[in-house]
Amino acid sequence: MGWGDLGAFGEPSKETPNLDQMASEGMLFMDFYTANPLCSPSRAALLTGRLPVRNGFYTTNGHARNAYTPQDIVGGIPDSELLLPELLKKAGYVNKIIGKWHLGHRPQFHPLKHGFDEWFGSPNCHFGPYDNKAVPNIPVYRDWEMIGRYYEDFKIDLKTGEANLTQIYLQEALDFISRQQASQQPFFLYWAIDATHAPVYASKHFLGSSQRGLYGDAIREIDDSIGKILKHLQKLGISENTFVFFTSDNGAALISAPKQGGSNGRFLCGKQTTFEGGMREPAIAWWPGHIPAGGVSHQLGNVMDLFTTSLSLAGLQPPSDRQIDGIDLLPAILQGKLIDRPIFYYRGNEMMAVRVGLYKAHYWTWSNSWEEYSKGIDFCPGQNVSGVTTHTQEEHTTLPLLFHLGRDPGEKYPLSFASEEYQGVMERISAVVQQHKETMVPGVPQLNVCDKAVMVSCVVLRGCACKD
Amino acid sequence: MGWGDLGAFGEPSKETPNLDQMASEGMLFMDFYTANPLCSPSRAALLTGRLPVRNGFYTTNGHARNAYTPQDIVGGIPDSELLLPELLKKAGYVNKIIGKWHLGHRPQFHPLKHGFDEWFGSPNCHFGPYDNKAVPNIPVYRDWEMIGRYYEDFKIDLKTGEANLTQIYLQEALDFISRQQASQQPFFLYWAIDATHAPVYASKHFLGSSQRGLYGDAIREIDDSIGKILKHLQKLGISENTFVFFTSDNGAALISAPKQGGSNGRFLCGKQTTFEGGMREPAIAWWPGHIPAGGVSHQLGNVMDLFTTSLSLAGLQPPSDRQIDGIDLLPAILQGKLIDRPIFYYRGNEMMAVRVGLYKAHYWTWSNSWEEYSKGIDFCPGQNVSGVTTHTQEEHTTLPLLFHLGRDPGEKYPLSFASEEYQGVMERISAVVQQHKETMVPGVPQLNVCDKAVMVSCVVLRGCACKD
Repeated sequence: MGWGDLGAFGEPSKETPNLDQMASEGMLFMDFYTANPLCSPSRAALLTGRLPVRNGFYTTNGHARNAYTPQDIVGGIPDSELLLPELLKKAGYVNKIIGKWHLGHRPQFHPLKHGFDEWFGSPNCHFGPYDNKAVPNIPVYRDWEMIGRYYEDFKIDLKTGEANLTQIYLQEALDFISRQQASQQPFFLYWAIDATHAPVYASKHFLGSSQRGLYGDAIREIDDSIGKILKHLQKLGISENTFVFFTSDNGAALISAPKQGGSNGRFLCGKQTTFEGGMREPAIAWWPGHIPAGGVSHQLGNVMDLFTTSLSLAGLQPPSDRQIDGIDLLPAILQGKLIDRPIFYYRGNEMMAVRVGLYKAHYWTWSNSWEEYSKGIDFCPGQNVSGVTTHTQEEHTTLPLLFHLGRDPGEKYPLSFASEEYQGVMERISAVVQQHKETMVPGVPQLNVCDKAVMVSCVVLRGCACKD
Repeated sequence: MGWGDLGAFGEPSKETPNLDQMASEGMLFMDFYTANPLCSPSRAALLTGRLPVRNGFYTTNGHARNAYTPQDIVGGIPDSELLLPELLKKAGYVNKIIGKWHLGHRPQFHPLKHGFDEWFGSPNCHFGPYDNKAVPNIPVYRDWEMIGRYYEDFKIDLKTGEANLTQIYLQEALDFISRQQASQQPFFLYWAIDATHAPVYASKHFLGSSQRGLYGDAIREIDDSIGKILKHLQKLGISENTFVFFTSDNGAALISAPKQGGSNGRFLCGKQTTFEGGMREPAIAWWPGHIPAGGVSHQLGNVMDLFTTSLSLAGLQPPSDRQIDGIDLLPAILQGKLIDRPIFYYRGNEMMAVRVGLYKAHYWTWSNSWEEYSKGIDFCPGQNVSGVTTHTQEEHTTLPLLFHLGRDPGEKYPLSFASEEYQGVMERISAVVQQHKETMVPGVPQLNVCDKAVMVSCVVLRGCACKD
């Protein structure tokens, strides 16, 4: 889902009344980011509080290559990583993941081996359908048990876009919450729905309900479900004791537009890129009675902050034996403070860009390769900023391209290298980058065991094939 | 000002708390248009309820040329046109215009000759400064009297962007409202501010107050002023008896970006064009106690509707001796009805496009000429939709380019000519266009007396020069 997909973020069809109400009762984050423009690394960062380059969700056998965990990869989340549910468990929390895990599908990576107590969902995306002999469809698990497969036991109609999955995920969420409330146990629910990921789907009731086509139908169903979850918390009388955060794992996939791709508002490009469209996310915090209603925060936030913030809410300290990139957002959320911190934009093993305050410096630019582009795969359809949305990997490390994201959120007008503003700002940013690079201890890369892990575009290829 | 310039419409800096609150207390229009992508014709349409091609605010000596009223044109609003204040007068309304008139500056076009009782402002834009001998600066009027000139008596500092004009306009508005309330007279106030028009300005207090630079400072000051006007109505106890509508006369001028140009959200191109970015406008209706708070309307609206809606509010009928294009929006605003009506997109004498429902058909495409473009004048910076944002006037009258604005608000993906959807929709649209063209009685063109009226780009040229 992209930054611009919600009414509160300016989507013209304005069809997300529940999320918009969540925002009006809670706090809207306008400057919130993911840790990577692709799903697996972003989710690994969310659950570890660490950049993918630290937690191993990156490649070293291809420069600046995004990578994820396709069906036939051997990598996954290392045992050495401490996941949020593992830590929350120490404070008595019961943890459940509903939906897409995406942190590895081999037995040792099973969510229940990494702190979750319950799981309903799948290790990977709902790509497919596959030939069920050589390439079986993606499995769906209830806890330790595989209970079926997408397309077979959990239907997805690729022709109509109909699938009941979001409704199943919703029911799982409501049931889990009810059980925890009944047993008076604190809980952590990671509701990792995926209806807006190609192949996009919605259940029958929502098909055709949007101005935006199937993608909009999926959004409407998600919006409706979130409304039901929040109302459920209120009905059970635990809303003032439950912190809820809504965000996305990467920008909208513009290669799937217009049929299955969302909106990144006025930001440049989308998923897979380190332009704003690829990594700035819709974000809403909700906690009635604690978060002032109708708040708007310009705190630079990141999915990794949800790790640290959740620990803080549970009265826990983040691990002290490793670098944690996430910060505790509670001062920003509860007291309106602004914490000075940079945002790093990575593709695979390369720091492509960094944001400090309202300034963003690109050290490398790349959209996608000429080879892909010539086949019609376009990460920035209708957008072309000369020298910025490049189709070769362009290095700017000695003279980064600098943008002011307030005056120019679309990254169209690089500042003049000769300007005083450029000089002054780059001095500040260079110090941040130098410190970041000097103290960087990269993790063992998990996603370059086979070139199958070198993501070209799974949305297009429907599962990655080894390229070499 | 562009569609995307308000927080409520997704501007990332979200710096318009007063307009956002106006929206949350009133009704937001997501599909509201101007009648022309340029100022003069748009304002003539607002005040007459008629398309510029009917009321004379167009050219016939240049195909599809936008035109306005520069300092040295002889044309203006014909006496035969009936303006909103002329009609409201019959119902006892006192009418005032504050700010930019732009319907002709020769004596016969004076606002007080066309129904207004009071005027504070100027006949034209605040371009300049000019040589005060050959080309004098733009005059400022109080009613019949010229009381000074911009840059001389009413300062605009082009270097810092400082000008006190919005504050003066605000005070004029508050005073007028107070007087009318005291005398218990119904009133119509046309608050035609222009701080977001290049050269963009803000008063000292607001300079540097925005994330967005000078343009954002101007927006903040406008937002603050509107907050003060609404609070003033409430303080005087007349807010439940006063209908307030906020909108803009054309999309943000992207040629002035990033320093002085605003945002059209995710819509294509900007001012001067008939793409959505040129003509879809931010729009908010406010009338406490009558309009349900927090409403969102997808009614296709147009500035011309404010003519008919205002008459309706005053208990008056629109003139029956001429074609009126504006419709009464009250059923949409008060009862949530959706009235089926088309939107026509004109440039000068040419109907470029038409919207029916969620579909928009382009009969002609054009951004600007290669000649201008080669000089760096770009109406669609960073945007290039092949075959759509053309630099020659491309005719598609036999096979219009068709877009679905719900699935594709950015006008990037024309529907396949061969599709059933195309065939069915174009049948519907063709009937609407045929009826429109057959019944069209064009007015006497006011803006092609001299080529000076043939607008290239006043923002760039700072006043038009005769090209021939």
